[in-house]
Amino acid sequence: MEPLVSIIMGSTSDLPVMEKAAKFLNEMEIPFEMTALSAHRTPQEVEEFAQNASARGLQVIIAGAGMAAALPGVIAASTTVPVIGVPIKGMLDGLDALLSIVQMPPGIPVATVGVNGAQNAAILAVEMLALADPEIAEKLTKYKEGLKQKIIKANTDLADVQYEFKTN
Amino acid sequence: MEPLVSIIMGSTSDLPVMEKAAKFLNEMEIPFEMTALSAHRTPQEVEEFAQNASARGLQVIIAGAGMAAALPGVIAASTTVPVIGVPIKGMLDGLDALLSIVQMPPGIPVATVGVNGAQNAAILAVEMLALADPEIAEKLTKYKEGLKQKIIKANTDLADVQYEFKTN
Amino acid sequence: MEPLVSIIMGSTSDLPVMEKAAKFLNEMEIPFEMTALSAHRTPQEVEEFAQNASARGLQVIIAGAGMAAALPGVIAASTTVPVIGVPIKGMLDGLDALLSIVQMPPGIPVATVGVNGAQNAAILAVEMLALADPEIAEKLTKYKEGLKQKIIKANTDLADVQYEFKTN
Amino acid sequence: MEPLVSIIMGSTSDLPVMEKAAKFLNEMEIPFEMTALSAHRTPQEVEEFAQNASARGLQVIIAGAGMAAALPGVIAASTTVPVIGVPIKGMLDGLDALLSIVQMPPGIPVATVGVNGAQNAAILAVEMLALADPEIAEKLTKYKEGLKQKIIKANTDLADVQYEFKTN
Amino acid sequence: MEPLVSIIMGSTSDLPVMEKAAKFLNEMEIPFEMTALSAHRTPQEVEEFAQNASARGLQVIIAGAGMAAALPGVIAASTTVPVIGVPIKGMLDGLDALLSIVQMPPGIPVATVGVNGAQNAAILAVEMLALADPEIAEKLTKYKEGLKQKIIKANTDLADVQYEFKTN
Amino acid sequence: MEPLVSIIMGSTSDLPVMEKAAKFLNEMEIPFEMTALSAHRTPQEVEEFAQNASARGLQVIIAGAGMAAALPGVIAASTTVPVIGVPIKGMLDGLDALLSIVQMPPGIPVATVGVNGAQNAAILAVEMLALADPEIAEKLTKYKEGLKQKIIKANTDLADVQYEFKTN
Amino acid sequence: MEPLVSIIMGSTSDLPVMEKAAKFLNEMEIPFEMTALSAHRTPQEVEEFAQNASARGLQVIIAGAGMAAALPGVIAASTTVPVIGVPIKGMLDGLDALLSIVQMPPGIPVATVGVNGAQNAAILAVEMLALADPEIAEKLTKYKEGLKQKIIKANTDLADVQYEFKTN
Amino acid sequence: MEPLVSIIMGSTSDLPVMEKAAKFLNEMEIPFEMTALSAHRTPQEVEEFAQNASARGLQVIIAGAGMAAALPGVIAASTTVPVIGVPIKGMLDGLDALLSIVQMPPGIPVATVGVNGAQNAAILAVEMLALADPEIAEKLTKYKEGLKQKIIKANTDLADVQYEFKTN
Repeated sequence: MEPLVSIIMGSTSDLPVMEKAAKFLNEMEIPFEMTALSAHRTPQEVEEFAQNASARGLQVIIAGAGMAAALPGVIAASTTVPVIGVPIKGMLDGLDALLSIVQMPPGIPVATVGVNGAQNAAILAVEMLALADPEIAEKLTKYKEGLKQKIIKANTDLADVQYEFKTN
Repeated sequence: MEPLVSIIMGSTSDLPVMEKAAKFLNEMEIPFEMTALSAHRTPQEVEEFAQNASARGLQVIIAGAGMAAALPGVIAASTTVPVIGVPIKGMLDGLDALLSIVQMPPGIPVATVGVNGAQNAAILAVEMLALADPEIAEKLTKYKEGLKQKIIKANTDLADVQYEFKTN
Repeated sequence: MEPLVSIIMGSTSDLPVMEKAAKFLNEMEIPFEMTALSAHRTPQEVEEFAQNASARGLQVIIAGAGMAAALPGVIAASTTVPVIGVPIKGMLDGLDALLSIVQMPPGIPVATVGVNGAQNAAILAVEMLALADPEIAEKLTKYKEGLKQKIIKANTDLADVQYEFKTN
Repeated sequence: MEPLVSIIMGSTSDLPVMEKAAKFLNEMEIPFEMTALSAHRTPQEVEEFAQNASARGLQVIIAGAGMAAALPGVIAASTTVPVIGVPIKGMLDGLDALLSIVQMPPGIPVATVGVNGAQNAAILAVEMLALADPEIAEKLTKYKEGLKQKIIKANTDLADVQYEFKTN
Repeated sequence: MEPLVSIIMGSTSDLPVMEKAAKFLNEMEIPFEMTALSAHRTPQEVEEFAQNASARGLQVIIAGAGMAAALPGVIAASTTVPVIGVPIKGMLDGLDALLSIVQMPPGIPVATVGVNGAQNAAILAVEMLALADPEIAEKLTKYKEGLKQKIIKANTDLADVQYEFKTN
Repeated sequence: MEPLVSIIMGSTSDLPVMEKAAKFLNEMEIPFEMTALSAHRTPQEVEEFAQNASARGLQVIIAGAGMAAALPGVIAASTTVPVIGVPIKGMLDGLDALLSIVQMPPGIPVATVGVNGAQNAAILAVEMLALADPEIAEKLTKYKEGLKQKIIKANTDLADVQYEFKTN
Repeated sequence: MEPLVSIIMGSTSDLPVMEKAAKFLNEMEIPFEMTALSAHRTPQEVEEFAQNASARGLQVIIAGAGMAAALPGVIAASTTVPVIGVPIKGMLDGLDALLSIVQMPPGIPVATVGVNGAQNAAILAVEMLALADPEIAEKLTKYKEGLKQKIIKANTDLADVQYEFKTN
Repeated sequence: MEPLVSIIMGSTSDLPVMEKAAKFLNEMEIPFEMTALSAHRTPQEVEEFAQNASARGLQVIIAGAGMAAALPGVIAASTTVPVIGVPIKGMLDGLDALLSIVQMPPGIPVATVGVNGAQNAAILAVEMLALADPEIAEKLTKYKEGLKQKIIKANTDLADVQYEFKTN
């Protein structure tokens, strides 16, 4: 089983955020890999990884990084595989990581999601895979329909909140 | 008893903030409803809700939302009933929600209150209802006069603080 | 003809922003007044204005202010008439005025619109008036429907943009 | 020729930014459409567009929006087609649009690019299309290699700058 | 003993910050008063306080406020007694209070200190009083000389930190 | 004639901002001096200036600075004469200068005014001088009363703006 | 043993941040000193320290400061020894200290590292020392190679995370 | 003549900012080179440049970059030669570039100067070179002394500004 998606992070401390991506891909039954790489500590490995990504059959790369978060952009520089960037909150409420990832120069886009938005990164990855795979597309449609359950649950909870002048 | 005000939120996790609106409306004896809706998870229900709001006799809508807080604006897009937006603090100190709610394009205003300002949203709603209902207006006037009590209490507390060179 | 809405600003330099509110009210045929008042230069006149607003029959107050924009909040402190605040861009991209207006303490809400959003303030005012006046409600509904014209116009413009691989 | 990519914007004033996306898609010979839609002015058309996007064969949607930029997120709410969001600079240096687009709630991602980054949005779209189309992949690889030309040109320019102690 | 300085705050919740001002004034043996007033809850009392400040012999007013912190500016509007504003941290790291206090319009200055800087407000007040009172000036000079003690203490502490290659 | 107030700036480029302070002091007939000093270019002269300020009879120091604006704080470190800091707008909308001046550590306050608020700095200086000089106090009271003239002028201007539904 | 590097801080409360610099220098066997100095509390000592730094044989100065962090810049003003500034997080997420240190005027640079980045400050100091000392250069090269260990450790940790569809 | 300093930038559009570094190095008679490199467009060339920097005899690297400014950090990742980062103002007032450069992870420092601070970057480079070269140290000392001339000139200018109550 070859991985279709690669989840990259810089250290184990990013795992609590990034595992939300892993869980979603697993739930969607998409083969994926999880690797630690750093634009600043292992630049050559990053370069090598990015250059081989397409040949290895990777379809999407999800890269999480905090602070001066260069990793997603540096990977994007050496591949045409779409790169999704996840800004990880550390200092400055994650604004430093968000701006470091999203404000890419012309020519090298990174598909950026919200601060700590690893689950959304995985959903976005699956949306891309679904373009060429009707089975994945169907799973995704079911998942998205399931999102309403959270609202239905919330409405049930709210129905239990009692006030004299509350009418529902 | 038909509701005059509708309090909308995206999930039960918003309840600790939004219940301050419910409590104030209840205290003012204004019939209201509480519902969960999401611009991103149940867009059709939001659209339907907004289009029917006026016909159902709703006079004001209070919508709380966090992060990329689209809900208040999307409701306002499909109704002429005034919409009050409550930015809910999550990431980035609530600045993301505040800007997502207040910076509406020309034509579709949202009456925005401060971050987590659900009680103020309810007071604003009651001010609007009071325009056409002298009884509500009177209750509101009494409430606003009561605000001074907090200051009177504070002065009593401060009188108890003793320093040699404090003169009051 | 007694005014239903009062538009307040601190100086003539605010007029280019605030006149968008005047134009919209005029278009909707809502009687209104325009006055200059300042929380910092004429505090007693502000206080007097706010205390008399309800008795004078004012239904909504629109107050524009820049920088440390205290005016909307100070008016709201002395009336139960709804106050709509318009942050006016000056220094710091208008962020100072926005925060000074929207972050009101519990008990004294200001219905805040976007930076320089005077037109939206007027639309919000008309939405409030429409609650008790079906004729105004009808005008407003027509106006809101008209907003789509801008999109229709944009689509016509976009149709004129020619690219070989553009399909519409 | 059916469009594979849809470029959405709210008004003609967004065209100078968004046409960079059109130009890139045209250069890559990807059929695309350009349409004006607004989450706040034509919510039903947006909903209809999003729900039909997949059935119409659209593979990627690029949506540009400014201020309280709800459009990309609202489209993403009703489709599994990947949505790329372009924050358009208006007020507050574009920070309001950036946060309104990128900070999406769990379940509904928007692939966000930098402020005014319409060209990068188109490149990202082509990267997604290339996953299933080797011909597009090849064009994209050539384009990315061409990016180095800008650096080569810059080096030539810098070689012309003369200082006594400059050694190259 | 008539107060020379007035410390104003909006509620008892501000006391933990503002009491640092009280302690410093007490230490310097400056008669002062502590009162609760609110620009938004007791506007008339604020107005009255400000107008009488000079006649009552007050030499400096220290006003602490959070969020849309109008109090210092509104007091300054009705007196020529110098007003020192203390932004109190609440939401948004205190940036809302800081901008609401410091960005005053031309004609009505507020001497602003740092977020939660009540002690510095009191020192500034004493500096103003010292202009006309040599005895106070002398106390202040002694206090400022004493500030070096903190550095001397820190150097003693640092001397205790042992590393092999530390030379002092 | 010995100066009571010293206006300090780092270079002639600050003069267009700082001369508003000079004009106000001149109008109030307060003897003042204008000097260029820099915490970063002439630290010893700054130190010497600050240490002699009190002995030279200076009553207030107004220091304008931009960017990493250390000047006001460094002067305040070596004198008990009150120091008013004027953040001068350069980069980052003046937010860098504002934070560099206002966020002083405990013990060394700087009375900070708004970005480019040199006129307000001068008014604040005169308020301090007025504490010990009834003649200055009287001039200041007259000046503050004159501020209303701007509002009266604005009201006259607004009276000239004609709309069919404008009632004043 | 004379110190080559001086670590400066304002109080013992900065020690938990700044000791990371000490530990790194110790590990690299670079003689260093740790001293408490404050631009605002002991300006003369700062001046004296800076003026003597070069003659004492200091090669690099590391200065940590929070809030209106003037210390690094003021030291840099009186020496040609390179000064590295460490913004210490206090209020406003450390943004105040960062801007106060990095935004220096032309002529007086401070080499600024990230918020609380004392370890990086020490590494930077060692990089400077290594320019003239091959032995230090070698140690530094070994240290930098060791950074990859963190990634290797992370990859080992990630290998232990088990999901059905995880392929590595 | 081998270069001691390398000035790196991404495109000719950065030249107006970065040439201030070149001019200063030329004035100090330090051999330098100017090259265009991009972390995102020519990652391999950047890697190669960084790995060879030390062997080529480079003593300092000055790298300017805007937006998601990865260049300085990526160079620093592959060399022990000190890297000075210059954030170049583009979008968001340069705050994106500043945070992208300064907030480096532990182990890989970048010596960051202010937004557009290329001249200061060059001065910092010369300070580092001066550690091992007394001749350069002397030139630098003279330059720093010359900075006072700007203040002297400003004082001359200010002496020409005439007000009746100005005393100098």
